[in-house]
Amino acid sequence: MKTIGVLIIAVMLSSCGNNQQSIDKNMNSSEKLIFAKGTKITNDNFSGTAWLNSLVNADSVNQNAVGSVTFEPGARTRWHSHPAGQIILALDGVGYYQEKDKEKVIIRKGEVVKCPIDVPHWHGASADTAFVQIAITGREKGETVWHEHVTDEEYHSEGSKK
Amino acid sequence: MKTIGVLIIAVMLSSCGNNQQSIDKNMNSSEKLIFAKGTKITNDNFSGTAWLNSLVNADSVNQNAVGSVTFEPGARTRWHSHPAGQIILALDGVGYYQEKDKEKVIIRKGEVVKCPIDVPHWHGASADTAFVQIAITGREKGETVWHEHVTDEEYHSEGSKK
Repeated sequence: MKTIGVLIIAVMLSSCGNNQQSIDKNMNSSEKLIFAKGTKITNDNFSGTAWLNSLVNADSVNQNAVGSVTFEPGARTRWHSHPAGQIILALDGVGYYQEKDKEKVIIRKGEVVKCPIDVPHWHGASADTAFVQIAITGREKGETVWHEHVTDEEYHSEGSKK
Repeated sequence: MKTIGVLIIAVMLSSCGNNQQSIDKNMNSSEKLIFAKGTKITNDNFSGTAWLNSLVNADSVNQNAVGSVTFEPGARTRWHSHPAGQIILALDGVGYYQEKDKEKVIIRKGEVVKCPIDVPHWHGASADTAFVQIAITGREKGETVWHEHVTDEEYHSEGSKK
């Protein structure tokens, strides 16, 4: 009976282990992503590893650009500002957002940030968790203006909940 | 040995059945939603059951309104047009989109539609599957103009893949 008991336990572990593996695999597969990660950002306006999927380009009749950005933990933009402002929709994970002379804010899946016109700010993933955002950026008043890099001190400053 | 075989199979089924149940439960929980469904739309510009969560209101500095709309199967808007156009991001499910004098298009999670300025169109869920969308609507040239209801014939017309 001992052998049978061991056999039963082994079957339980192996059959359910396989199931668990396939679940984990699915959770990490592109099935979970709404929008593909796109291409790795290689310019100096970002630090760490971040990915951009340009969903909509601005054109003469609708001057909004819409992009999905995936920041790996620790990745962030430089300080920058938008002549027509920006709207950020947090799709997944945990991110940081900070406007000049304000405290860093922690943003989570389902939260929304409206960046005012011409106000320097930065955003990115939290130190431990990746962050996926949709950015809606009006191009009618010109392109994004890039400023200095976010220092480690700024990045790791204490954040408040949105 | 026959009894042992039956026992092993029973253990496999019961242990893994429980796992499956907990997965299904999670998939249906609010954990899966990025943005809350919001409030049920009660005006006559929609038919069937649809929900609106207004994420961002237009203001004097950023005239985009952003909302998450959840259409239950069969629900749709009237024909309507936007003086500044609209961008639709499909977050989940399967939806229909049609512009005047064009074929109905089937849109799925991860797809994007740019509705031109002043072109009458309608959108909604497919007949069998709910549809969740983000709508980005510029308000700088005025409000949405609503036209007639979508007929059942139009709704059920053959759709092409986006």
